[in-house]
Amino acid sequence: MSKPMTNEARLRVRYAETDKMGVVYHSNFIVWFEIGRVELLRQLGFNYRDMEIEDDCHIAVVDVRCRYKLPARYDDEIVVRTSLKNVRESLLHFSYQVARAGDDALLAEGETTHIAVNSRFEKMPLPEKYKAAFTEILHRN
Amino acid sequence: MSKPMTNEARLRVRYAETDKMGVVYHSNFIVWFEIGRVELLRQLGFNYRDMEIEDDCHIAVVDVRCRYKLPARYDDEIVVRTSLKNVRESLLHFSYQVARAGDDALLAEGETTHIAVNSRFEKMPLPEKYKAAFTEILHRN
Amino acid sequence: MSKPMTNEARLRVRYAETDKMGVVYHSNFIVWFEIGRVELLRQLGFNYRDMEIEDDCHIAVVDVRCRYKLPARYDDEIVVRTSLKNVRESLLHFSYQVARAGDDALLAEGETTHIAVNSRFEKMPLPEKYKAAFTEILHRN
Amino acid sequence: MSKPMTNEARLRVRYAETDKMGVVYHSNFIVWFEIGRVELLRQLGFNYRDMEIEDDCHIAVVDVRCRYKLPARYDDEIVVRTSLKNVRESLLHFSYQVARAGDDALLAEGETTHIAVNSRFEKMPLPEKYKAAFTEILHRN
Repeated sequence: MSKPMTNEARLRVRYAETDKMGVVYHSNFIVWFEIGRVELLRQLGFNYRDMEIEDDCHIAVVDVRCRYKLPARYDDEIVVRTSLKNVRESLLHFSYQVARAGDDALLAEGETTHIAVNSRFEKMPLPEKYKAAFTEILHRN
Repeated sequence: MSKPMTNEARLRVRYAETDKMGVVYHSNFIVWFEIGRVELLRQLGFNYRDMEIEDDCHIAVVDVRCRYKLPARYDDEIVVRTSLKNVRESLLHFSYQVARAGDDALLAEGETTHIAVNSRFEKMPLPEKYKAAFTEILHRN
Repeated sequence: MSKPMTNEARLRVRYAETDKMGVVYHSNFIVWFEIGRVELLRQLGFNYRDMEIEDDCHIAVVDVRCRYKLPARYDDEIVVRTSLKNVRESLLHFSYQVARAGDDALLAEGETTHIAVNSRFEKMPLPEKYKAAFTEILHRN
Repeated sequence: MSKPMTNEARLRVRYAETDKMGVVYHSNFIVWFEIGRVELLRQLGFNYRDMEIEDDCHIAVVDVRCRYKLPARYDDEIVVRTSLKNVRESLLHFSYQVARAGDDALLAEGETTHIAVNSRFEKMPLPEKYKAAFTEILHRN
């Protein structure tokens, strides 16, 4: 049994991401989810840029949810842990945990649901190579 | 019976809000929710800026969800319809509909949950004047 | 003699635009410049969205400068005054003043230089209708 | 003679940073400048977060300029090269080069000017330890 596959992406909180409460403005966590997603693809051997260019396949967001536990602060090093939760014909479902690198405190967790679309936003099946790779890691999880 | 209270805030999609798919990047809808929320407060006679300064009361986001229906495009005029769904001691729950002004097509809908905190992020009861106003419009809804 | 043409665009500072210093993060003024520019075009009878779609003409930024005088604060109503300073074959030059609506205090001023490009980022002459309109308002200024 | 001191910060272009032209929206380069500035401080042994907290010293931007040479694209790895150009009583002047990591193509270059202020935005002299370190690297340059 191999270990479940989770990508760990790291980033550092930018000044631009903070707000007047002195902490990270909440919508930036949604941007960080996307970073985690792309790095999970990269770990699988795929480049999302190429997926868009070569396969005209775009992973459009249809649902996003985030629960905030603790504020993220300026200059914090952040770990985004991303896992694939489900894959179907043209649907992908990811989950995320956002933690502070220093003490691994959980700052937020969330999920996103996506459908594969072409550049005209028409639903399309996931190209076989992606679907195969996604299915393989799902079974590992 | 008065009508349920919904704020309608209007904004125009900025170039900076679009992404390489040619549509609004999804995290911007979460920013628009915040605009709707603040305008609902203003409609109630409150200024969120003063709420922070005068009452040291901050409406921290603890949960956000957004479901995307149709892409928003550059220069679209957008309507954000915000309603208060619930209020308790130190908790607020809002719902949102984001529509295209031209044809009122529904682009996204979502909910946010908040707790009242002071500037040290300690949970606090909503000051009475806000709680009274929120409760009043809830009963109208 | 008609008055020089300046567009006045209005916007309200968003919470997401503030940073941990409690004021608007400086790069947002550059976003506001773009809003001013687009509204100046609209005042001239042009829609930048259509300019991109119908004429494949994009006003790419090649130089931006901003001098900051006073901080902009959350919920401030902001006026962006945009003027065309120069137009040539495929070059446009705008200047901006960003003021607080309440007391008209000058918060920042700046300039941007642009070249007209097609969607492959190849320099192109400004389509005649735009050039004619721009030249006309320059002479008025 | 030691080499002039330049910090090289690396980052990867986020999807959220692109716009409908398919390239990075120009104001994001200004955010990247700030990342470069903070990493230059870190290389000097200072943490800007601590500088704000412990010394109530904030490096407010008073002037920013950026000249754009080539578009940055989604998923590009970016190098921000930051140098200190000048330091005076309460003034700092930095310059930046933004390059694509792959082929070191120059994408943009710029400068920022800053004044040291306290949290009430009152001009203050740079605390001696920072001034000494800045002056030392200037003389090395």
